Amino acid sequence: MRVLLFDVFGTLVDWRGSLTELAEATAARAGLEADWAAVVDDWRRAYQPAMDRVRQGAPWRDLDSLQRETLNDVLAQRNIGLPAADREALVRGWRLLRPWPDSRDGLDRLRRRYVTATLSNGHLALLTDLLKFADLRVDAVLSAQLAGGYKPDAKVYLTALRLLDCQPGDAAMVAAHAPDLRAAAALGLRPIFVRRPLEWGPGVPPAEPPALAGLLATDGLDFLADALDC
Amino acid sequence: MRVLLFDVFGTLVDWRGSLTELAEATAARAGLEADWAAVVDDWRRAYQPAMDRVRQGAPWRDLDSLQRETLNDVLAQRNIGLPAADREALVRGWRLLRPWPDSRDGLDRLRRRYVTATLSNGHLALLTDLLKFADLRVDAVLSAQLAGGYKPDAKVYLTALRLLDCQPGDAAMVAAHAPDLRAAAALGLRPIFVRRPLEWGPGVPPAEPPALAGLLATDGLDFLADALDC
Repeated sequence: MRVLLFDVFGTLVDWRGSLTELAEATAARAGLEADWAAVVDDWRRAYQPAMDRVRQGAPWRDLDSLQRETLNDVLAQRNIGLPAADREALVRGWRLLRPWPDSRDGLDRLRRRYVTATLSNGHLALLTDLLKFADLRVDAVLSAQLAGGYKPDAKVYLTALRLLDCQPGDAAMVAAHAPDLRAAAALGLRPIFVRRPLEWGPGVPPAEPPALAGLLATDGLDFLADALDC
Repeated sequence: MRVLLFDVFGTLVDWRGSLTELAEATAARAGLEADWAAVVDDWRRAYQPAMDRVRQGAPWRDLDSLQRETLNDVLAQRNIGLPAADREALVRGWRLLRPWPDSRDGLDRLRRRYVTATLSNGHLALLTDLLKFADLRVDAVLSAQLAGGYKPDAKVYLTALRLLDCQPGDAAMVAAHAPDLRAAAALGLRPIFVRRPLEWGPGVPPAEPPALAGLLATDGLDFLADALDC
């Protein structure tokens, strides 16, 4: 194995905690009250159907554009009149997500023995800003954007492998989500599951690793670095 | 200004010194003698015509493929019978280039205030390996490959700006070569010239900065970081 590809939202960074805090602070300034964690959860759930439209053939649009639209829908459903500038601050908030406590050091250790790259549905401009904000170092910043698609479309993984000049058998996909790992494993990449029990907040049962041949399941990037002797 | 784009070969790394040493060591093992610095210079010169064929409409091929072909030509012209495995080691040598002494620290300082990215004619797989070898950190690894072209084609710069969601006026191109800066400046990027008097070895007159409006000329990335208050 030569290359490790990393999912980002949920796997490397805590979107829910970060966006909920940002929404609470933004709303407090606007004098608005709401269950912002629930808003953020709804927003995150609305993102799959928005990407599905692209996967089914609609023109590719970046995540800012999709998130702007779905945030408007979610706020309208809950009758929350958040001003436009504040909505935009939340959309930009996807660039300001905190890493999980093990992400930075884990990536640094894994870089010693492997070529590391993101492979996220976030577009390159967003990922670049986010990795800079979170101080996460990878060898290459790759995005589904470079394939003009969204994970789990096969072309996203295949484009990343082509750009890194890597055979599927020499790569692993590292993610906290089963669909991402299933798609990668179907193409011959090794699936590595990272448990992120707090991704959807405390009290929500954690996602289970998918049943895939050769799956490695781990509790964080520091454990993964241990497992891979980094 | 928000984004700094960096040329790589000659601007961040010393291709000539590194490849000449590698060629000498490789040839010594094969028991061959030649003026390897001159071979490397010829090889580097052969690279522009090879890229020109792509710029003029031939299908895009990566730099490994172009360099493999031009190295064969250069060695044939000089009647040097270097074994195939050693030729391949030289082609792979473009991943093992030493940074100039100011490159690593200069890039680290410039990252504090700017989004930094490579914009090189090297393909992404090569750049990723090279930056890792040289321990050079940038926020994004961008390549002419992502535009399916080669600098100084306008589409290369425009693709990089699009991927970073950046207007030309918010970006600078940092390079040791006038054609790169002329092309970038024509699109509205700020040209930043880095003097690399040893790029073609000692005793060769250094390249002069091009006469471009707003040009900043500097003697290294540490000086550039000083000039930009990083």
